[in-house]
Amino acid sequence: MASAAQSPVYRATTTAPVNIAVIKYWGKRDTTLNLPTNSSLSVTLSQKSLRTLTTASASADYPAEDTLTLNGKPQDIQSSKRTLACLSSLRSLRKALEDADASLPKLSAFPLRIVSENNFPTAAGLASSAAGFAALVRAVANLYQLPQSPRELSRIARQGSGSACRSLMGGYVAWRTGEQVDGSDSLAEEVAPASHWPEMRALVLVVSAEKKDVPSTEGMQTTVATSDLFATRAQTVVPERMDAIEAAIRDRDFPKFAEITMRDSNTFHATCLDSWPPIFYMNDVSRAAVRLVHDINRAVGRTVAAYTFDAGPNAVIYYEEKDSELVAGTVKAILGSSASGWEGPFYEPLAQLNTPGVALDKIDTRVLDVLKSGVSRVILTGVGEGPVTVEDHLVTEKGEAIIN
Amino acid sequence: MASAAQSPVYRATTTAPVNIAVIKYWGKRDTTLNLPTNSSLSVTLSQKSLRTLTTASASADYPAEDTLTLNGKPQDIQSSKRTLACLSSLRSLRKALEDADASLPKLSAFPLRIVSENNFPTAAGLASSAAGFAALVRAVANLYQLPQSPRELSRIARQGSGSACRSLMGGYVAWRTGEQVDGSDSLAEEVAPASHWPEMRALVLVVSAEKKDVPSTEGMQTTVATSDLFATRAQTVVPERMDAIEAAIRDRDFPKFAEITMRDSNTFHATCLDSWPPIFYMNDVSRAAVRLVHDINRAVGRTVAAYTFDAGPNAVIYYEEKDSELVAGTVKAILGSSASGWEGPFYEPLAQLNTPGVALDKIDTRVLDVLKSGVSRVILTGVGEGPVTVEDHLVTEKGEAIIN
Repeated sequence: MASAAQSPVYRATTTAPVNIAVIKYWGKRDTTLNLPTNSSLSVTLSQKSLRTLTTASASADYPAEDTLTLNGKPQDIQSSKRTLACLSSLRSLRKALEDADASLPKLSAFPLRIVSENNFPTAAGLASSAAGFAALVRAVANLYQLPQSPRELSRIARQGSGSACRSLMGGYVAWRTGEQVDGSDSLAEEVAPASHWPEMRALVLVVSAEKKDVPSTEGMQTTVATSDLFATRAQTVVPERMDAIEAAIRDRDFPKFAEITMRDSNTFHATCLDSWPPIFYMNDVSRAAVRLVHDINRAVGRTVAAYTFDAGPNAVIYYEEKDSELVAGTVKAILGSSASGWEGPFYEPLAQLNTPGVALDKIDTRVLDVLKSGVSRVILTGVGEGPVTVEDHLVTEKGEAIIN
Repeated sequence: MASAAQSPVYRATTTAPVNIAVIKYWGKRDTTLNLPTNSSLSVTLSQKSLRTLTTASASADYPAEDTLTLNGKPQDIQSSKRTLACLSSLRSLRKALEDADASLPKLSAFPLRIVSENNFPTAAGLASSAAGFAALVRAVANLYQLPQSPRELSRIARQGSGSACRSLMGGYVAWRTGEQVDGSDSLAEEVAPASHWPEMRALVLVVSAEKKDVPSTEGMQTTVATSDLFATRAQTVVPERMDAIEAAIRDRDFPKFAEITMRDSNTFHATCLDSWPPIFYMNDVSRAAVRLVHDINRAVGRTVAAYTFDAGPNAVIYYEEKDSELVAGTVKAILGSSASGWEGPFYEPLAQLNTPGVALDKIDTRVLDVLKSGVSRVILTGVGEGPVTVEDHLVTEKGEAIIN
C-alpha cells in the first residue's frame, strides 16, 4: 500500500501506573457499573519500575472492528463487555465534541487500533488490569482530545476494572464509593500528590506462583453474598479507616499509615475466609512475610514497615526511604541470591549493603526458611506519578502495530 | 509404713472425654470466671479413642498441700489459680454436706492427692485441658459424693478451662453464655445424648507440629480487644448459628450440621486474622484439608464431610458412619502409609478398604501432595459418652500414686 493513498492515522500514546490499595476494594454493589460497596485508597507505584504503555489510534482505513493487542496478543474485544463499555463511553464524549465543532475529524466514527504492553511479566502476579484499563482510557481520551479531568475519566476506567480508576492519578488516591445508583459520583480523586510524601517505598515479594484459585470478581461476589462479617467491614470499619488513613497521609505519619494498612489487609482477607465456600489468597509464605514485618518493627522498636496483600499471595511491603536499610536491607539479607529483582532505580541505597538492617536472630527462624524458599523475585519501587503522554508509539504513522 | 497405722485413703476415679466444638468458644467477657462472649456447642468424642483418667484421693495422713500429678509429672497446683478455684469450689460443696451430716468423714479438711493421665500423646495437638479439668472436677465430686448434676458441676469445670464444662456430658453439648455477672447461668447442657445421633464420626488429621504461636487464652483476649469484626460474630452470627445447629442436631440433618460447622470454623479463624497483631492458626496443610472436604462434597454431590479447626492447624473432619468409605476411605487412600493411626475401634469399616471412596482425580493434585507430606497421624473416632466412674485407680489403697 502506498502511504499517500491512505487516510490519516491519528495516534496518542500514554503510560499508566500500577496501584496497590492500602484500604482494599472488595465487593460490588453494582456489577455492571463496577460500583463498590466501600471506598478504597491506594498508592500509585512508580512507572520507573512498572508501567503499561498504550497507543490508541484511529483511521477511516482500518477494518471495521476495533482491535486491541496486549503484549503482542490480539484480544477479543467483542466478548469483553468491560472494554466495550469503556470505548463506548469515550466515543460518546468525542461525538459530543464533534457535534459541537464541525471542523473536528470524525474520529468517533473510525475504528480503533489499540496496542498495549506491560514492562513487567504477567508472572509477577501483579494486578495488571488496573494499569491496563487506565492506560486504555487515558490513551483514547488523549486521541479524542477529551477535555475531561482524570477524576471525570475515572468514571469510565472504573467500568473496565474497578481499581483502574485509581491508576489515572499519581500519589495517594481515594476511590469514593459514591451514593448515586448510576455511579456518577463513584470517582477517584487525588488525596495527595506523590510530591507530598515522595519518600514512600514499596517492596513487592513475588511468591512462587500457585494458580490463583478464585478470580477477584468472582471472589468479591461470593464474599458479598455469603460473609456474615462483610457488611461490618464495608459499612463501619472502612469508613473510619478512610478518615484515619487520609489524616495519616496528610500528616506523613508512617506508623499510623502502616497500622491501618496492615489491619485493613487482614480484615479484607478475614472476610474472604469468612466467605462460603471460603477463599484463601494468603499462603504460608504470605504468613511468613506478615511475621517478618512484625518482627522487624518489634526489633527496631517503631513501625518502619507495613504489609498488604491483594487477591493473591504476594506481599507488598511499604516503608519510608530513610528506613530502606532496616526493611529492604533485611529482606535482601534473608533472600540472598534466591530471589531476582535486586536492581533498578530504587536499588541505589541498597546496592552497597552487605549486612541486614535488622539482625537476623531477631526474626523467627521458620520465617527465614519459608521466605527464602518461597520468594522467587522482588520488585523494588516507590510512590509515583499518574499517566504520562509519550511519543514512543506502538502504532506506526501508517497504522501498523509495533510488537516488541 | 504399716498399712494398719494409716488413716483411711478415700478414692474415686473417673474418665473424661475430649470435645471438639462446632460452634467455637472464642472470647471471654470475664477472664477470672471464664465467662464467654458467646455460646458454643461441641461434640463429645468417644473415650474408646481419647480419654483422661483421673483418680482423686484424700487422706488425713497426706502432707498438707494438695498435689496433682499429670502423665507422671508433678504439677504446681499453687501457681495455677484455675486449679485452685476448682478445688476450692468443690471443697465448699463438700463442707456444706459435712455441716449438714455430722456422720460424714471430714474429707473437705483433708489434703488431696490427684493423679491423672491421658491415653493420647500431647503431641497429638488436641486440647487436653478440657478433658483434664472435666476429669479433675468429676473425680473430686465423686470422691466428695456431691449430689450436684453435671450441669451444676459445669460451673466449676468452666473456671478451670472454659471448654472443660462441655466435657462433663456426652453427645451434643451446648455451653450457654448466660447473662449473670457472677456466671451462675453460664453452664453446659446436653442438647442431645450420643444415642440420639450415634452415627457421627470424627477423623482428626494431626498436622506435623509447628509450635503454636499464640496460646488460646492470650489469643482470645487479643481478638476481643482488637478485632473490628469480633462483635458481629459474638452478638449476631453465633446466636443464629446456635439455633440452627441445634435444630440440625435434633433433625439429624448432616448437611445442615456440616455447613454451620464449617462456616463457624471459618468465621472464628477470620476474627483471629482480623486481630491485631493478626493470629494465624491454620497453615497450608489446614487449607489443603479445607479444599479436600469441599472437593469430596462436590464429587459426591452432597455434603458428606465437615471440617473444623480449633486454635491450631489440626483438622477435625466430621462425617456419618454410612459415609466412612467416602470420607475416611478417601483420606486413607491419600495418606497411605505416610500417616499413622489407622486403627482402633472405629477402623473396622475401613480395614478392608483398598480404594478411595472418591476417585483421587476429583481432588486438586496440590491438595493431595500437601496432605500427604503434612499429615503425620490420624485419629479415628466418633461421638461418645460423658465421664464414666471406673475402678482402675491411679492411687493405691495406701495412697501411693501409680505412674504408668
